[in-house]
Amino acid sequence: MLRVGIDVGGTFIKAGVVDEGYTILHKISVPTGGDADFEALVKNIARAGELAVQEAGAQWKDVSSVGIGIPGLLNPRTGVVVLAPNLGGGWRDIPFLETVQKLLPVPVYVGNDANCAVVGETLAGAAKGNENVVMLTLGTGVGGGVVTDGKLFVGGRGLGAELGHMVLQMEGAPCGCGLNGCTEAYCSVTSLVKQTRRAMELDQKSAMHAYAKEAGLVDGRTAFECSKMGDKAALFVVENYCRYLANAIGSLVTVFRPDVVLIGGGLSNQREYLMDKLNALLPRFVFASEVIGVPPIRRATLGNDAGTIGAAFLDIM
Amino acid sequence: MLRVGIDVGGTFIKAGVVDEGYTILHKISVPTGGDADFEALVKNIARAGELAVQEAGAQWKDVSSVGIGIPGLLNPRTGVVVLAPNLGGGWRDIPFLETVQKLLPVPVYVGNDANCAVVGETLAGAAKGNENVVMLTLGTGVGGGVVTDGKLFVGGRGLGAELGHMVLQMEGAPCGCGLNGCTEAYCSVTSLVKQTRRAMELDQKSAMHAYAKEAGLVDGRTAFECSKMGDKAALFVVENYCRYLANAIGSLVTVFRPDVVLIGGGLSNQREYLMDKLNALLPRFVFASEVIGVPPIRRATLGNDAGTIGAAFLDIM
Repeated sequence: MLRVGIDVGGTFIKAGVVDEGYTILHKISVPTGGDADFEALVKNIARAGELAVQEAGAQWKDVSSVGIGIPGLLNPRTGVVVLAPNLGGGWRDIPFLETVQKLLPVPVYVGNDANCAVVGETLAGAAKGNENVVMLTLGTGVGGGVVTDGKLFVGGRGLGAELGHMVLQMEGAPCGCGLNGCTEAYCSVTSLVKQTRRAMELDQKSAMHAYAKEAGLVDGRTAFECSKMGDKAALFVVENYCRYLANAIGSLVTVFRPDVVLIGGGLSNQREYLMDKLNALLPRFVFASEVIGVPPIRRATLGNDAGTIGAAFLDIM
Repeated sequence: MLRVGIDVGGTFIKAGVVDEGYTILHKISVPTGGDADFEALVKNIARAGELAVQEAGAQWKDVSSVGIGIPGLLNPRTGVVVLAPNLGGGWRDIPFLETVQKLLPVPVYVGNDANCAVVGETLAGAAKGNENVVMLTLGTGVGGGVVTDGKLFVGGRGLGAELGHMVLQMEGAPCGCGLNGCTEAYCSVTSLVKQTRRAMELDQKSAMHAYAKEAGLVDGRTAFECSKMGDKAALFVVENYCRYLANAIGSLVTVFRPDVVLIGGGLSNQREYLMDKLNALLPRFVFASEVIGVPPIRRATLGNDAGTIGAAFLDIM
């Protein structure tokens, strides 16, 4: 049987038809619909699934279930989206599953988008074959997902596993969520850019100025690329950032004891340069690492497809 | 059927015969055996179970299983104790379950002692009726346990949920475990005593000096009791300590989304004075608390019996 995975983002809805070997047979992308009301957005989501099935040359009778990843807090059992700030002008306490199920002819499963990504990577990507996985997606924020004993860990009422908002520095930097000292406030690319800008202000001779000028902006690459060229200010930023991130990962290892930790998002394009630094630092931040050891930190490999594949297989997680 | 729960501590082994209503019918306490070798300690543990059954006037045929809580890191499935520094001069990679099972005539289950405590409180204590529970035991260290969806959460290979070593302050105070900035380094009673001593050094006129002199020592009560009497230095210590602890609890709520948080250990004798402060602070430290709300923080009620009852019921968790 086939499955349909739908990854709902603030801008685009991606839908894919996935076979039992976790291969996406066909995928499409349609606009989410901006600030359209809830019913219109749900119709767009169901329609994206419909379209993916049609374009794949399949029929609903070939499809066992649809899984949908949502960027927000939701209870996967009741299907109520408690909070999704980036959808339709902000969803709050929306009976999403109940509504979308009426528009689709097969059973529907829903999950958080970061959770879908870790499911995808665990089944078919960089964590394939592992039963215990923690994944952090580094972007504007820090998304997180956990698989324990081969099952998706979501916490009470499905509202937990908000790894980006685990504390890293008590009473520390303000986070976009309103709290202070969250992992996201130190480890997101947004924060890395802030850290980069601060170092640039302090060192007018840093190579980062020329690099940013040529690139047209300061972004997550600025410090990393300049540190590779030997720029001291850039290296300082990178080493601080990696220590923050390794400390956050160490805390997650202490709590979840994964067999492997995955890093996703644009910054994971720094590949071995980033992973080698993190793997070298990790033992310093894991409880009893000298006895139990530490898991390897690896780059996620499926990119955007992780969310689609993971959503499609929510039914077995 | 009856069950036997055995709570193994560094000094005493407590064993209890427990009925299906979670009532301890009879309990005993015997010396653990100090630095005796592994085999001798395991015999003492099995003998404690035997003795409890005998003294309860029961027979092994009335007992469905034995559960044993161990102060250390262990894999509940394989029954291997990876690390237990306080047993027999320090256990490391010990096939505990395999060995103790040979000495007992019914199926044996093993778990970490802090995990047993949360099981006991969830089944029969302050969290009765809840499916999602986080418990912190504040003592020399900070022990932790988590129940999610009615099941004990132990992390990969049973080695996770070391909540006391989740980071609270990146690159912060040294922890007894060798890491820096662990929750334990700020929230244990050991740390509270350090914080108290520091405040006393800085304020020679604080009422804490007279209180400690009369008590014969500075302990977890010193700052709390003097703060109730209006001593400013003591109140400063208590408010800082409560903020640290509320921040750590907030992070755990963000990750696990329990329905209730329990505080165990001697400091929980501060009852409403402590719980009211923690409950008032908690929303400041929980992700999306204004939307999802926060769980109540309550005092654990079973005391030492939590470990015995929880161990007895490891088989259903």
